[in-house]
Amino acid sequence: MLTLYGFDVSNYFNMIKLALDIKGVEYKTVTLYPNQTPEYLSKSPMGKVPALETEQGILTETNVILEYLDEAYPDTPLYPGNAFEKAKIKELVKMAELYLELPARRCHSEAFFGQKVDDLTKKEVKRALCKGIEGMARCAQFSPYLTGEQLTAADIVFLYSADLAAAVAGKLFAIDLLEMAPGAKQLMATLNQRQDVIKIAEDRKLANVEFKKYLSSFS
Amino acid sequence: MLTLYGFDVSNYFNMIKLALDIKGVEYKTVTLYPNQTPEYLSKSPMGKVPALETEQGILTETNVILEYLDEAYPDTPLYPGNAFEKAKIKELVKMAELYLELPARRCHSEAFFGQKVDDLTKKEVKRALCKGIEGMARCAQFSPYLTGEQLTAADIVFLYSADLAAAVAGKLFAIDLLEMAPGAKQLMATLNQRQDVIKIAEDRKLANVEFKKYLSSFS
Repeated sequence: MLTLYGFDVSNYFNMIKLALDIKGVEYKTVTLYPNQTPEYLSKSPMGKVPALETEQGILTETNVILEYLDEAYPDTPLYPGNAFEKAKIKELVKMAELYLELPARRCHSEAFFGQKVDDLTKKEVKRALCKGIEGMARCAQFSPYLTGEQLTAADIVFLYSADLAAAVAGKLFAIDLLEMAPGAKQLMATLNQRQDVIKIAEDRKLANVEFKKYLSSFS
Repeated sequence: MLTLYGFDVSNYFNMIKLALDIKGVEYKTVTLYPNQTPEYLSKSPMGKVPALETEQGILTETNVILEYLDEAYPDTPLYPGNAFEKAKIKELVKMAELYLELPARRCHSEAFFGQKVDDLTKKEVKRALCKGIEGMARCAQFSPYLTGEQLTAADIVFLYSADLAAAVAGKLFAIDLLEMAPGAKQLMATLNQRQDVIKIAEDRKLANVEFKKYLSSFS
């Protein structure tokens, strides 16, 4: 059986959980925070989560895991279509990661954990998030899903990354990021009504208590 | 015929050129710098290069284009193997981009264009590049290629990203980055002897003259 390493507060971890749930693939989870112990580095080369243990070995990097799952478990495809259509889904996945998730994470500590981020970083992040959502608005359809009528991996990644980016933009810059991509709010509402998404959100809420304790052990 | 937008100094552009050359796919290029004109944004949603125009429409993001090409033009596969083996190649591609190319670019302007990067950024980049190459050393084989005996997309991306990262690490931090991944220097030497790689390097050298003129038009 597949084993998923990570923790329920992690966006990337939750993307994989949602994909596995949608595809109906059985798996177990091992709760684990990113770390640089030799033992974990032998599994996950950067010490990051999520990592997925398969019968053939371990995989890391969320989009890589999502694509692997779709190829190894073809039921309920998350990258449907021909080579070009698949590529358009991957393009949106990549954009959500590179232009929303990653910039937002640079301000994570101020937005959620009461720490202070320097002004230069905040200026860069503000600009990056606005450019990112504008870019996605240019190529996503939101009708109702990012690439049309069918839910794909792009929606799974957008759900968590846009949520984080919107929270950071709202708290730190007083910007309503989702408003900048017409259809984005409706898509988020549609996704957030799903039972599988609600369950993951509940798990996250519970796990957040433990995670905050873990974080405070460093300060 | 495929049309590739970009310019010969761009690492990402050259990765696609090399992939097309290795696969023997015909294409033409249109020289173009990243820009935010409405006309180009309608092709490339972030205004970035490379962008590949296919009969079905335009694709952006280098790894997405590489995977598309491999699916649409299956001769000389760059992602050979089963679902797991393909995923391991994609993992290395992702690592080279996220943990070498992207951090190195943050110090690009100081390393190559005589501008000044702030100390906090340099500190972050130094740490990121060392972590990145250590992570790659943990999971790449270098025997002689990253995933074994066959050249894959991971080697194409590594060639250009590790070269940039090593140049930044050498110039700004006096660190021999490739030395930290045993086998990396030999792999670079092997790749740099290829005729297709030599041709791309010559094109780059020529294009660099025009590119520097273009850059100086902003200062």
